[in-house]
Amino acid sequence: MKIPAVKGTRDFYPEDMAVRNWIIDGWKRVSLRNGFEEYDGPIFEYLTMFQIKSGEEIIEQLFSLKDRGGRDLALRPEITPTLARMVNQRINSLPKPIKWFSVPRLFRAERPQKGRLREFFQWNVDIIGVENGLGECRADAEVIFTTVDYLRQVGLTSEDIKVKISSRELLASYLRSLGTPEDKLESIYTVLDKKNKLPPETFAQMLGEQVADNKIVNKILDFMTVDSMPQLEELVKVKSESGEYSPYLDIRCVLDDLDMMGVGDFCVYDPSIVRGLAYYTGIVFEVHDVGGGLRAICGGGRYNNLLRDFGGPPISGTGMGMGDCVLEILLKQKGLLAKQVPKRQVDYFVTCIGAIGKEAWRVIAKLRSMGYSANFSYKMGGLSRQLKEASAQNAKKCIIIGEEELKEDKIRVKDMATGNQELVDVDEFLSKLTSA
Amino acid sequence: MKIPAVKGTRDFYPEDMAVRNWIIDGWKRVSLRNGFEEYDGPIFEYLTMFQIKSGEEIIEQLFSLKDRGGRDLALRPEITPTLARMVNQRINSLPKPIKWFSVPRLFRAERPQKGRLREFFQWNVDIIGVENGLGECRADAEVIFTTVDYLRQVGLTSEDIKVKISSRELLASYLRSLGTPEDKLESIYTVLDKKNKLPPETFAQMLGEQVADNKIVNKILDFMTVDSMPQLEELVKVKSESGEYSPYLDIRCVLDDLDMMGVGDFCVYDPSIVRGLAYYTGIVFEVHDVGGGLRAICGGGRYNNLLRDFGGPPISGTGMGMGDCVLEILLKQKGLLAKQVPKRQVDYFVTCIGAIGKEAWRVIAKLRSMGYSANFSYKMGGLSRQLKEASAQNAKKCIIIGEEELKEDKIRVKDMATGNQELVDVDEFLSKLTSA
Repeated sequence: MKIPAVKGTRDFYPEDMAVRNWIIDGWKRVSLRNGFEEYDGPIFEYLTMFQIKSGEEIIEQLFSLKDRGGRDLALRPEITPTLARMVNQRINSLPKPIKWFSVPRLFRAERPQKGRLREFFQWNVDIIGVENGLGECRADAEVIFTTVDYLRQVGLTSEDIKVKISSRELLASYLRSLGTPEDKLESIYTVLDKKNKLPPETFAQMLGEQVADNKIVNKILDFMTVDSMPQLEELVKVKSESGEYSPYLDIRCVLDDLDMMGVGDFCVYDPSIVRGLAYYTGIVFEVHDVGGGLRAICGGGRYNNLLRDFGGPPISGTGMGMGDCVLEILLKQKGLLAKQVPKRQVDYFVTCIGAIGKEAWRVIAKLRSMGYSANFSYKMGGLSRQLKEASAQNAKKCIIIGEEELKEDKIRVKDMATGNQELVDVDEFLSKLTSA
Repeated sequence: MKIPAVKGTRDFYPEDMAVRNWIIDGWKRVSLRNGFEEYDGPIFEYLTMFQIKSGEEIIEQLFSLKDRGGRDLALRPEITPTLARMVNQRINSLPKPIKWFSVPRLFRAERPQKGRLREFFQWNVDIIGVENGLGECRADAEVIFTTVDYLRQVGLTSEDIKVKISSRELLASYLRSLGTPEDKLESIYTVLDKKNKLPPETFAQMLGEQVADNKIVNKILDFMTVDSMPQLEELVKVKSESGEYSPYLDIRCVLDDLDMMGVGDFCVYDPSIVRGLAYYTGIVFEVHDVGGGLRAICGGGRYNNLLRDFGGPPISGTGMGMGDCVLEILLKQKGLLAKQVPKRQVDYFVTCIGAIGKEAWRVIAKLRSMGYSANFSYKMGGLSRQLKEASAQNAKKCIIIGEEELKEDKIRVKDMATGNQELVDVDEFLSKLTSA
């Protein structure tokens, strides 16, 4: 009986696993060096968890299941609700700010497309509990820096990718200044979030369905095409003129911090970034390939009400999520996978002239216990066949155990790169091994 | 709105994640040094996958769900069916033997108990495609060696744990010699597998329900109490006397190989090991704590029909699965977690006298890009508060950036262990950093 894999899932054969591990290990290493600690939650949560503050799109795409008591569960489509739950559970004992990262496996029951699978990995970094406005901007900047730190590390440059930064708060204050009622904001965000995915006419029409006044529609469309900070400053100043704090300053501050951190060339203001998730309240951002052929590589932003919405105190947070699918496509396009993902290697391949015996086992067991990878042939072929198998496994060295040499307690060590062979005393060889 | 986690799942706070990572990294490292390559499959498969050859117990405990087309899926309760599917898909192109490992997250919808959760991690190693009898024993031995190599590495000795080895084939041939019909074997296995979990009377009674003849019941009970190889040899010889190949020889051969590999003191013959899964055909084994207070730490065995049962060719396999829950309990009991799981550390904590500015960002960004973990304070407190925060994060060194020193392009580097401070040129310090 032959059963296929479920569509939209992936089988990770060793060569695929090498790519996945390389990506995930990189995420982890960069998170740690940026001062984040790792956490994780369960693969499934009560269904209601994801109905509180996730975007419409996510809710429609949940994989739901039931526990034995008939309670509704769902496979996690994102980890932020779990993060909110976990932080709320220990809100008093956790030192602030909380700088955490995670690499959850996530699930969406949507039709599989290029860069969108039903099952994927997502790198998440979050900073929760920074208490003042200046600190909040710095936290937003640090999340973005960490993101760029990774993307730069794997070889992407500011010619390849851009971090497009905007602010929900700025957008809200602009929409309010045009007389938009509070309860209309979220449905307008949903439309604005689609700007880059729709033809301009369709977009304008959809916006018209949310905003009756055509003059206001045009003003929103103008706002959405601002593409520099001076242009934005002018527009916002004209609109507020109060000299008070303005969400414009947040963007300015985040961009300045990123500049000081040395990644300013990756970052631009872009009002078309709105994000689909309902919980964002301030700075929002996405990383896009400059070529523009792909979906967003990652996205994130500030969510100052999320912990409260999940039954906790009103503590601010900011974070980022990066999936593995689009990233992998981009890295492959740029030729950055082939030259960086490590190839399979074996430190030692132990070959025997004659039957594999006690001495071979002793050598293999000792090599392994010292931390060296060691393999041998199951095929019971001659030496040349065994050496071929060693080459196929990319062995660095071969041990050749021959009955004649063994009589004098000696074995041969062959360097597979140079072909050089050395005859050595077996006990001396084993005792001289230093931990790998 | 406060929503709890689902019962039987775990939240991994950073200190829990450190334990999980330490266990899983150890599994991976030992697998690689034993010559295994990593693979993984999807979290869910079509439900029918798990109905083919898994044990009764597993089928009852599946978390099932549906895809958008209404097809029945299940969260994987084990990875072996996925392994069979993946190997069958590429059976002609994969070099044999296939030595693969995986660390899948698995799911069972059972009532949570000590050491049994609804969601857990399981280390799997498998060797598929070894073609002759002697090689098969060697593969069984290598799987067991790899298991012990890990357990020994984390500090467990042969005083703490024993590998109990038996053979389904030997059991079958013994049962056949007593006149047991072929179609009765599996239901008898199911009873025998419960021997150590039931009071002796209940066990004898359940066996009596499967085997009508009381004399035969007693013979089976005798067989199940054999506890040494000489005793077994006598019993099996008396029964067969043909001088032909006997499954007894497999056990002998596996034990001899394990002895040559230097782990003989961990291994014993134990007929009470039967294993619940329906797909085992030869050698079976479990690792138990000598104290006996815990469930099996791991189990495995030979499955020579599995690939064929999943629509592939009749290729032999052998493997092992070890969950993280019982292992963690045992390691905690033995005090082996506390002294081995690494504590959180930060390489550098960058402090500022006065506001954090361009120079601090430059230092932090450079340290991170060189691979050092670097943090700073979000709290905007004085130097002593910042140094306290650095201590709480277990920082190895602190950088102190003061406005006065900066005028001369200097910063202080404080060793947190010794308390020593050094005044250094900032550019020189940064340019001298070697990759972490």
